[in-house]
Amino acid sequence: MYRVYGMAESGNCYKVKLLLSQLGLSFEWIETDSTNGETRTPEFLQRNPNGKVPTLEISPGVFLPESNAILCFLADDTPFWRGDRLERAQVLQWLFFEQYSHEPYIAVARYFLLFAKQPQHPELAEKQRRGYLALSVMEQHLSREPFFAGGRYSIADTSLYAYTHVAHEGGFDLAPYPAIRGWLERVRAEPGHVGMRDR
Amino acid sequence: MYRVYGMAESGNCYKVKLLLSQLGLSFEWIETDSTNGETRTPEFLQRNPNGKVPTLEISPGVFLPESNAILCFLADDTPFWRGDRLERAQVLQWLFFEQYSHEPYIAVARYFLLFAKQPQHPELAEKQRRGYLALSVMEQHLSREPFFAGGRYSIADTSLYAYTHVAHEGGFDLAPYPAIRGWLERVRAEPGHVGMRDR
Repeated sequence: MYRVYGMAESGNCYKVKLLLSQLGLSFEWIETDSTNGETRTPEFLQRNPNGKVPTLEISPGVFLPESNAILCFLADDTPFWRGDRLERAQVLQWLFFEQYSHEPYIAVARYFLLFAKQPQHPELAEKQRRGYLALSVMEQHLSREPFFAGGRYSIADTSLYAYTHVAHEGGFDLAPYPAIRGWLERVRAEPGHVGMRDR
Repeated sequence: MYRVYGMAESGNCYKVKLLLSQLGLSFEWIETDSTNGETRTPEFLQRNPNGKVPTLEISPGVFLPESNAILCFLADDTPFWRGDRLERAQVLQWLFFEQYSHEPYIAVARYFLLFAKQPQHPELAEKQRRGYLALSVMEQHLSREPFFAGGRYSIADTSLYAYTHVAHEGGFDLAPYPAIRGWLERVRAEPGHVGMRDR
């Protein structure tokens, strides 16, 4: 059985829980709070030298970190990551977009407000400005396509849903993004969906 | 023939040129300078709405952005991205590490010094601090393994080589990282290697 080292309130960790639920796979969740140093202990650094959650324990002593790499591992050869070489690469395109152009702004703005409780943080405005740029790219794509790749739900959607659906907790207003709001509803309607705070 | 929209001095773009060379594939390079707005024109945004290079034109009108997604597309079913499900996911693990924990610090510090010419930039010290954290994770791994995944050269190495081999241009000193320096030599010795500034 898979073991997930994760933090319940982290979107990156929620991605893994969501996909495992959609795949119908059982797992053990080890709550690991990165905000109080639990990912920087010598014991945890043995599991992931980069000191981050989520980290998936695939079998005893075999660990895989990086949320989107975990999604690819779990989704390989399933309907959640399929298609020809180009379509599979387009899923990866959006996974890299998520980690480079989306998460560092939308998740970090949420961190400032929800965890650090620093609404006056000097970097908040810039994180929000760049987060809105990512939302604009998503809105443009979703105004023409129902999902991010191949016209159907894939792990690209799982990944981008994780922090987009709680973007308001980072101070983002999704009212001017009707295509994103419609997509959030379609993602929630997928079989096996679980919410971030569902047990 | 593939067409690459890229900027010669960009490590992200160099990754694509390096792999194409290693695969023995011919390509047309369209120099596109992101530092003077050439990736934000209406024409370029049709190719990549996120306004970034590299962007690969696979066939007329079919574009793939995101450097590491391009590597995966080109390397699929080649010796540069092979192995079982776990080994392929471990390659992805390092590709996501590169874009989240490495490039935003090492490439951006280099940008401040080499392009913006701002050695006094207020964010430089913090970029360097976090870049050194990434180098430490790499050093630890490479002190036990010859390459990043599966004990052999893969696109994980192509990707991490791109900005690591010019880290000194971002003010990083690799002298205390012997395992990284040995790995840089091994990467350079791979068949088909071309330098960033080679024509």
